[in-house]
Parts: sequence; structure tokens; C-alpha cells
Amino acid sequence: MKFLGYFRSSSAYRCRIAFNLKGIDYDFESVHLKSGAQKEPGFAAINPQRLVPALITDEGQELTQSLAIIEWLNETYPGTPLLPADKDLRAEVRAFAQVIACEIHPLQNLRVLQYLRGELGLDEEAVSAWLSRWLGEGLRACEDILQKRGGDSAFCFGDEPGLADICLVPQVFSAQRFNVDISGLERVNAIHDNCAALDAFAKAHPAKQPDFEP
Amino acid sequence: MKFLGYFRSSSAYRCRIAFNLKGIDYDFESVHLKSGAQKEPGFAAINPQRLVPALITDEGQELTQSLAIIEWLNETYPGTPLLPADKDLRAEVRAFAQVIACEIHPLQNLRVLQYLRGELGLDEEAVSAWLSRWLGEGLRACEDILQKRGGDSAFCFGDEPGLADICLVPQVFSAQRFNVDISGLERVNAIHDNCAALDAFAKAHPAKQPDFEP
Repeated sequence: MKFLGYFRSSSAYRCRIAFNLKGIDYDFESVHLKSGAQKEPGFAAINPQRLVPALITDEGQELTQSLAIIEWLNETYPGTPLLPADKDLRAEVRAFAQVIACEIHPLQNLRVLQYLRGELGLDEEAVSAWLSRWLGEGLRACEDILQKRGGDSAFCFGDEPGLADICLVPQVFSAQRFNVDISGLERVNAIHDNCAALDAFAKAHPAKQPDFEP
Repeated sequence: MKFLGYFRSSSAYRCRIAFNLKGIDYDFESVHLKSGAQKEPGFAAINPQRLVPALITDEGQELTQSLAIIEWLNETYPGTPLLPADKDLRAEVRAFAQVIACEIHPLQNLRVLQYLRGELGLDEEAVSAWLSRWLGEGLRACEDILQKRGGDSAFCFGDEPGLADICLVPQVFSAQRFNVDISGLERVNAIHDNCAALDAFAKAHPAKQPDFEP
């Protein structure tokens, strides 16, 4: 199985955590986003959308989009399930993941930040305000969802990490990277710290990847 | 079952198509986004993220995020499946849906357009350029994915409509509404027209909803 990603991509980071939680080995190929490697014909033939991550299975199937890849991994390797068995709770977990993948992350994507700085000519203060708005508001929504659920489980939806945690940790990493203040989000921070203490999460951190650049 | 949506919301539109394809009846409650009804305490108690759609099941479970709601509907009412039985193809269909839900739609959301016009002070020309860029590039990626798959199936992934078509049609509606030129996208337009000819899609159209405003 070959995984094409980039150390700093949030969505590649999600997949790495899923691989590690499942204990699945894979070959890694770095797609250097900052130099535009995702736009070259070789990668575009794999993913016409020209975004990482992509996964090439042992049968040569080319899969894209982190959440679809993680659902595929979960269906292909059922050990250590990443989604709950109960369908109502499963819907809640998927919704939480989608709050991050569909509402927060798209607004901080590299290509969007390039558009803000380039086409719109925003200065760094305005870019920071943009990031603070969407990451701050989005992670606040995550906190509100966790508070609404109640309890003090170690992870988002229980005592084992799963898809929700897989999405939350890279998003908190992005907030830290962009200096967005989320210090008031108690559940988010507690769960992040519980995850970060696990090998599966720690080894997936961007700074631990072979293509890491400071 | 109570469905909370808004006629013009793409993600509510997706759910309506899914209900219709499944032949599921539901009570509808309109959440008037333009006047900010989604921010009032009543709705925020259901969805702390303050976005439509939301679904309250007969058991009182509150579900959010259109793709999670549609997966839940598909698992709860297995007749007329909206995802393929083959797990590899299922991953492709989910990825296609996520190209739209995670990469295109978030950039045209009402709150983002309000930020562009408000906080960033963009004029209508600049907002149009933003929309053309992300909807144009995004739907181009959808076309490329369909072309890469090949064939001339009536729907995105075969002879029956499913999750990919459910996401594609509202996104094409948005492109039309925002005057984004997608006339060159052959497969996208052909599939859109095939879908639009079906009752399940036609009845879900924004103009057919009880809360429609011209």
C-alpha cells in the first residue's frame, strides 16, 4: 500500500493517525505541496483534484479524500474500529469529523491562503484574522458539541480514540501553528492532550515525518 | 422525523434528494438563514454549530451535517441504497461527495460570503471572482474524476443515482445561481440533466420548497 502525503497536510495527518491506530504499515511518498508537486502530471493522474492525500492499494486502486480513505481502512481492516457499532452514535462521530473536514479545514487550506495573500492582497494581520475567525469559531463549535454530549470521557466519543479524535488533533495542531487562541476550550484541549500521549498520535505528528521541514 | 433546513442551503438540498430517493416522509421546519434564525438559542441547542441541516429522529436523536445524515438514512433505511456494495467503489463515491462537501461548498457558504463582503469589504466583482475560482476549479475536478473513471453511465457511478449525484446536483445549482460558467463540463452537465429529470431530484429543488423566496 502506498500513501502519498505531506508532513504538514492536516488531511494526511488524519490518515497517518488512522494507519497507526490500526497498526497498518505502508510505503510513504512525499508530495511537496509548497513547491507545487501536487500539480504535476504524475500526481494529477492519481488525483485529478491535485490535493493530498492519496492511497494506492495493493490492488492498484487509487483512493483520495482523507475521510473516504479512513472509512475504507476501517472497512478493510476491521480490527480496532474507528467508528462506533451503534448507528446513531456513528452518525454523531461522522458529523463531528465533518464539522472539521467540511467547515474548518477548507478555509485554512494552502490554496485558499495563497488566494487571500495573492489575488486579494491581504496582509498578514488580515490573514490572521481570517484564520482566527474560522478556526476559532469552528473549534468553539467542536467544544460546544462535546459539552452538549456531556461527560468527561478520555476521547471525543468514549474511552477509545476514533474518527472524531483523528480529525480533532490535526485541527488543534493547525490552530497552534496559526497562533489561534483556543485556551478556553476545556474538552478540546483535554482530549487533545490524551491523544497526544498515545504512540499512534505522537508518531503521526508532522515533526516526526521523513519529509518534515522546520 | 423532523428535518430542519432552508430552501437554498446546498446541504439541506442534498438531504431532501436522499429522503426522496428513499421514499421517506418527514416533517419540515424552515430555519431562515438570511434573517439569522440558525443563531437563535432554540436552533443552537439542537446544533451548536448553528448551521442547517439538522434531523431529529423519531427517537429524539439530533443529527447534523448532511453527509452524516445521509449515511444514517442509508443505514436506517437500507432500501434503495445510496452507496455501492463494493467497498472500493464506495470509497470512490464518498471521495467524490467529499470533493464537493469539503472543498467546494465550504467556500461559498453564506457566512463566508458575508465575511468577504463585510470584514474584507470585497465588491461584487471580487466576490464573483472568488466564487468562479472555487466553484469552477472544484467542478472541473469533478469532471476530471468522472472522465478518469470513463464510460458514459447515466449517473456518476453507475446506472442508479447515489451519494455522488446527491452532492453534484445542488453544487451545479449553486454554480448556475452564482453565474459560474461550467458549460464545458460534459459529464457533469449530462449527469445533472439525467438527475433533474427524476422526480426525487425535481421535488427537492429549492424552488419547490415551502419556504422558497424568489
